[in-house]
Amino acid sequence: MDSDIRAFVLGQRVGRMASVDGMGYPHVVPICFAFDGNQILYTAIDSKPKVGCWKNLKRVRNIDANPNVSVVLDRYSERWKELAYVILHGTATLLIKGPERDAAELSLREKYEQYTEFLEAGSPVIRIRITRQVRWGSI
Amino acid sequence: MDSDIRAFVLGQRVGRMASVDGMGYPHVVPICFAFDGNQILYTAIDSKPKVGCWKNLKRVRNIDANPNVSVVLDRYSERWKELAYVILHGTATLLIKGPERDAAELSLREKYEQYTEFLEAGSPVIRIRITRQVRWGSI
Repeated sequence: MDSDIRAFVLGQRVGRMASVDGMGYPHVVPICFAFDGNQILYTAIDSKPKVGCWKNLKRVRNIDANPNVSVVLDRYSERWKELAYVILHGTATLLIKGPERDAAELSLREKYEQYTEFLEAGSPVIRIRITRQVRWGSI
Repeated sequence: MDSDIRAFVLGQRVGRMASVDGMGYPHVVPICFAFDGNQILYTAIDSKPKVGCWKNLKRVRNIDANPNVSVVLDRYSERWKELAYVILHGTATLLIKGPERDAAELSLREKYEQYTEFLEAGSPVIRIRITRQVRWGSI
């Protein structure tokens, strides 16, 4: 990954992740994430659906049916010469427990102090292994 | 559509649109859009791919293969109690010419004065007919 893409992604506080269900319908939600600076993004399952447990979350069911995801990190500005984005294409895996999940939770807590209040310890984490990047604008 | 969802969507300057290609891979990009206040979003094809014409844009090829799209409109804040989003699920159609395209271009120019510089007259427009909405947080 180019160093300017890396720096841009590291600097972002929110991304938007698209996934696809088994019928070919897309879904897109804002995500907070931790980036390892190389090839992996982690995003925590920090919310629950209105009915049932986190396993019913649309993003979780989608990843189970189809692991392909895309995440866009972008900068919006009313000065359009400053617009920029990076799209990360990757493969998502759900981490329920184990050392990689534990380390990811720690990284997320280091980046977002809000998780002290908003993330239950031991929450599942989605790991996204980045397979391809697209950049646009003056990142 | 609820009046608070309508107001939230009307107030947004940027959304992120997910589409899916014929192989089931998602794609997500930031979009500017005009909302008719009811059931339709319009977003202009205001950029070109690195190679070839707008028909080669990934979002255009995806919609041709699979018209299902999702658009998320959200508010990010470091005060997470203020986080909110609306996901609009819909069906996309490309408008190449005709009165609906012309009116959409006008709406986009009214919302974004930047288009004076950044939008070629007569550009194709993607129409998204909203079929379902999901809301989360304090919109």
